[in-house]
Amino acid sequence: MKSMMLVVLGNTEISTVPGISVAGATPELTKLTPPADAEYLFYEKPKIIDAIPVTPGGHPTPAIITKAAKELADFPLIIVRGGTYLAPLVPHVHISDVVGRDFRKERALPEAREIVERAELFGEQLNKLGLKEVVIGESTPGGTTTAQAVLWALGYEAKTSSASPDNPQNLKAQVIEEGFRRAGIKKGDFASKPLEALEEFGDPMMAAVIGISRGFEGEVVLAGGTQMLAIAGLLRAMGEDLGRFMVATTRWVASDGSSTFKETAKDIGIIFYSADLDFSKSRFKGLRDYERGYVKEGVGAGGATWLAVKKGFTAGDVAEKVDELYERLMRIGG
Amino acid sequence: MKSMMLVVLGNTEISTVPGISVAGATPELTKLTPPADAEYLFYEKPKIIDAIPVTPGGHPTPAIITKAAKELADFPLIIVRGGTYLAPLVPHVHISDVVGRDFRKERALPEAREIVERAELFGEQLNKLGLKEVVIGESTPGGTTTAQAVLWALGYEAKTSSASPDNPQNLKAQVIEEGFRRAGIKKGDFASKPLEALEEFGDPMMAAVIGISRGFEGEVVLAGGTQMLAIAGLLRAMGEDLGRFMVATTRWVASDGSSTFKETAKDIGIIFYSADLDFSKSRFKGLRDYERGYVKEGVGAGGATWLAVKKGFTAGDVAEKVDELYERLMRIGG
Repeated sequence: MKSMMLVVLGNTEISTVPGISVAGATPELTKLTPPADAEYLFYEKPKIIDAIPVTPGGHPTPAIITKAAKELADFPLIIVRGGTYLAPLVPHVHISDVVGRDFRKERALPEAREIVERAELFGEQLNKLGLKEVVIGESTPGGTTTAQAVLWALGYEAKTSSASPDNPQNLKAQVIEEGFRRAGIKKGDFASKPLEALEEFGDPMMAAVIGISRGFEGEVVLAGGTQMLAIAGLLRAMGEDLGRFMVATTRWVASDGSSTFKETAKDIGIIFYSADLDFSKSRFKGLRDYERGYVKEGVGAGGATWLAVKKGFTAGDVAEKVDELYERLMRIGG
Repeated sequence: MKSMMLVVLGNTEISTVPGISVAGATPELTKLTPPADAEYLFYEKPKIIDAIPVTPGGHPTPAIITKAAKELADFPLIIVRGGTYLAPLVPHVHISDVVGRDFRKERALPEAREIVERAELFGEQLNKLGLKEVVIGESTPGGTTTAQAVLWALGYEAKTSSASPDNPQNLKAQVIEEGFRRAGIKKGDFASKPLEALEEFGDPMMAAVIGISRGFEGEVVLAGGTQMLAIAGLLRAMGEDLGRFMVATTRWVASDGSSTFKETAKDIGIIFYSADLDFSKSRFKGLRDYERGYVKEGVGAGGATWLAVKKGFTAGDVAEKVDELYERLMRIGG
């Protein structure tokens, strides 16, 4: 019985709101982050752009952790395009090319049902392959804001994490409240209407992960931080038994005081694994800064580490491999 | 150890040459056949168009056989877009959106290397899943002409089959000879240059199947007729050991006197399985006509039957299920 990893790509217009996302050097570049992350997992550098995604301060994408774990543990990995501006230039499962809209102005994802249904069909095929476990990561700039909006709509008093040490909680709250006004709802109004929450405030990554999870009947590891909690919340509200689900994230998210990761996981009733990654001894400042709250998680970093650890590697091995990959990037000018 | 099925979709401009292909009601409609076939495998009707693909005489697509075998044996099936005009409206692995060009006027597939490389990356992931066997079918209108051009370029004295009882061999030969003049080559000139043969005369389905097969190191069933022989010929010329390969086709192809299926398989040195399908007792003329040389094979019909037979069903069970599906189509006006 095998495990495999999926990385689901999503975009939302929300990532271009100035100050919301640091999953790209500029708000505009966040549009390219999902395909560039996907490509970097398979090649030495992305193809769609000549450098790996970085924060405005130059901190490297968490895809470097996923890639490190993959190089160690050699697990099967398939990219899924939940909905992005651009297709990644690697083979990938196409679910949709729909991008989540700015929920302050309009419904975020009127296509949610169709994306869920299509993704479910793909999940069913994975189920027939007889896999034991599917680990599902994501790359979705702006995704912690859509996640928080969904969690609030479902009635959770949640604060999602951020790839910045200065979690823009005031800005997130302001954007979400504007969205709630537009939709004419208040916190908790969609507690028993998960599909409406997804349509009004979600993103295509969420819809794709939900569909795949429902089609696949085995164990599902939701590999991510607070974004995956929003998905767990939606699944629970849809009546899904969370017994076969687990969230896998990193220590940086699990211990993030600016978010409510642990409390919200408990409220939803989902167990979690926290990868004990430590970059404090890295040779590179961009990586050491992970210890100061930069980046934290993404591209299924925690879940990929979970797969490596199950294969007998340690989180320390993964951290060492990350350093090696970063050095390789420096050498080729990535 | 599991088996799975892939259906690789391809288009080539060659299918619009009047008289070349009956894999569609009109030459123009052949462009829609690959996505419509793919969609029909998952739904009661295609989505991209409101009816299943038929020949100009109304004979139903061989996808009905693949669908019948799938409903019986419940094997995992994933659609792969090797290169088509339109994306199928079902989840699918995207390799490329490149369409093969008319090789009388220009090189058919300058992107061949890139498609092979990308598909190989996908094949590698399937390999890591620990699958025993991958069955690869195709839907590529005009594909027997590109196949024959490739076989000739490789030096095989082959005649490929046709979905028509009147195999347009004169027209095929004329089109291929025009292509050879354009490229300045004669039969056999690419015997040791398989990639050139693919670039000059191939189609994106071929390139994708070659890449997947090379990335996947287990048993590969090339599910198709003479088109799959062209792929086997290319693989052999690339130095691939054909010991792990088999062609699975239908009795209608294996016994087709207008083609050289058996002789060419022997020349290439690949074993084959021929599904013993018999539609002579069908309630429907469109299906009984398979016995008169219409359609014959496609969408991995023979390979899907192989999977059903391995699961304990008979070719007769598949034929019965095909009748049932056809009746369902009649009822819903598909």
